[in-house]
Amino acid sequence: MESIKRDLFGPGPTNVPDSILQALSLPTIGHLDPAFLGIMDEIGERLRHCFQTKNSLTFVLSAPGSIGMETSFVNLLEPGDKVIVCINGVFGGRMKDICERVGAEVITIENEWGTPVDPDELRATLEANSDVTAVAFVHAETSTGVRSDAKSIAEIAKSHGCLVVADCVTSLGGVELLVDDWGLDVVYSGSQKCLSCVPGLSPITFSKQAVDKIKQRKSRVQSWFCDISLLMSYYESGEKTRAYHHTAPVNSLYAMNEALRLVVEETLQVRWDRHRDAASHLYSRLEAAGLEMIVAAEHRLSPLTLVRIPEDVDDAAIRGGLLNNKNIELGGGLGKFAGNAWRIGLMGQNATVDRADFIADALISEL
Amino acid sequence: MESIKRDLFGPGPTNVPDSILQALSLPTIGHLDPAFLGIMDEIGERLRHCFQTKNSLTFVLSAPGSIGMETSFVNLLEPGDKVIVCINGVFGGRMKDICERVGAEVITIENEWGTPVDPDELRATLEANSDVTAVAFVHAETSTGVRSDAKSIAEIAKSHGCLVVADCVTSLGGVELLVDDWGLDVVYSGSQKCLSCVPGLSPITFSKQAVDKIKQRKSRVQSWFCDISLLMSYYESGEKTRAYHHTAPVNSLYAMNEALRLVVEETLQVRWDRHRDAASHLYSRLEAAGLEMIVAAEHRLSPLTLVRIPEDVDDAAIRGGLLNNKNIELGGGLGKFAGNAWRIGLMGQNATVDRADFIADALISEL
Repeated sequence: MESIKRDLFGPGPTNVPDSILQALSLPTIGHLDPAFLGIMDEIGERLRHCFQTKNSLTFVLSAPGSIGMETSFVNLLEPGDKVIVCINGVFGGRMKDICERVGAEVITIENEWGTPVDPDELRATLEANSDVTAVAFVHAETSTGVRSDAKSIAEIAKSHGCLVVADCVTSLGGVELLVDDWGLDVVYSGSQKCLSCVPGLSPITFSKQAVDKIKQRKSRVQSWFCDISLLMSYYESGEKTRAYHHTAPVNSLYAMNEALRLVVEETLQVRWDRHRDAASHLYSRLEAAGLEMIVAAEHRLSPLTLVRIPEDVDDAAIRGGLLNNKNIELGGGLGKFAGNAWRIGLMGQNATVDRADFIADALISEL
Repeated sequence: MESIKRDLFGPGPTNVPDSILQALSLPTIGHLDPAFLGIMDEIGERLRHCFQTKNSLTFVLSAPGSIGMETSFVNLLEPGDKVIVCINGVFGGRMKDICERVGAEVITIENEWGTPVDPDELRATLEANSDVTAVAFVHAETSTGVRSDAKSIAEIAKSHGCLVVADCVTSLGGVELLVDDWGLDVVYSGSQKCLSCVPGLSPITFSKQAVDKIKQRKSRVQSWFCDISLLMSYYESGEKTRAYHHTAPVNSLYAMNEALRLVVEETLQVRWDRHRDAASHLYSRLEAAGLEMIVAAEHRLSPLTLVRIPEDVDDAAIRGGLLNNKNIELGGGLGKFAGNAWRIGLMGQNATVDRADFIADALISEL
């Protein structure tokens, strides 16, 4: 097959380091091979570190990030359960959709696209509603480039006895995320963003409180594939008799193991700082060229920057030109931002000041 | 990461050809990149050939084979729909489980493990029950090494106006499979068996009749991830404006494209014959050594052979010895065959007379 090389500055996938691609292409072994179970254990250990959690039920789902979202809700919620979903972009909207399919009673809080979830509105909504089982929000909205205040949201939800579900697809490995300290109960992510791994996997973690809620379910989980009770005995028991559930994507998990190793080696704080510094540099370069960042400085998500497309500029021409002439992928706007914003990702391997210069130079030269 | 090399003679994954591993590790590009959409089209064309179908809705799901099973039923069936599930092993049992989670009314036909689905029993059950929406069966039971007569089953089901769902996880690319000629409506498979690709993907195809049934649904599909109405416009319309649904597992799809290319290049008939000849050779070698095949000759599934473990032989010691001393994976029994049968896979790259000799020599020398 012909090799196509792009510089990936969209909302993910980002470029994948060579050592991860090398791990990916190691010979396939069986998913029940003791050597593979050793790799699964290693992944679990490293992932717990990256999530900053002690949760025993911390593993990697065999499908993209949206299966992380679905797995969270179909297990945690039963029909009739009340859930508050905070919506400030595409992915909050998807949470609502999935919760409805579960048969949950969904209460929404909607905040303007490009702004974070409003903790005061959450507090008021919790005060106005009793018996809410869970609060769900998107830590890092990939559609708008906004970071919400996960710590405050979780604190408010917890003070009302709610479980907390957080979408951390674009924050894990790139932005401060402290699952245990903040009291997040179910957190999922994706492989292809700040972890700089290939797309197709979804890391996830469940707190003990979440596991307890799931164990008390009266109804069966509606999805067989996502039913974590079929996996729980393995992760929970400490026994190493692994029951067969489905055939794990062995090679992709080799890649994930290497991606997590790189994060641990670099250390989380250094990696978070690197993402922040790269993004700051990008803001300065683009602002100096007269471009406008859409999100207020204090709410920006360093791995993903939304830039307003100037009125006289043709979105498709610019992105097409970058792709076809320079092999550079720039992200288009999603949902309400389609056609009026670019999404520039500086994630994982690409989160450096040099790469920020590279994409700033390329974009500015097209204007 | 350390490389572990095994000769894989279990129920899958099988060994992956180098050219597929090379394709897998090509640089990642974006899932909305026009170059990637070209690859998706190529995959669709090749997959239609492998399935022997003209179905426009023929594509690869971003998760292992069990998501193929789940996607089939959650889309095709609505709560209250009547479905006949034929059970002659683990995977028929899983079909029943998933259909129940959908809220369907499930009628089962159970045949002895190690024997095929009985078409006469299906006919009688269809005559005794009206308004059956679909008949589901496993073409190639990976738990028992049995091939059922898909053509007859589909013919009977069709004559009663039913849609037909077939699990072809261990038959696609290794055993005769004629989706259109036989009248199969929903057919799914896995990447890691006779296609000799890495595990983690599930090829699937839907007939026009299946699509029509899905379009007439009154209720929403219970799974967001598996809801093909969210994907259908892309595959059905012929338009190439690809809507974003989830981030495709780009690298795994590179590998799938190469795996399918190899099948088309070899031609299906040659590949089916190769699997049959390798298996025949294996039977002779093992029978000459006094071992007994569990399945009657006419119902054997060439890619996967069940061998009875002699009474004085220690299953764990033999499999452990092969793995630890010779880096050979042999499959253990599943379900009712746990501890009393081995499952020997000769799939994809390993379906040759030479490889049959290799595993026969290795196993016989351990006895």
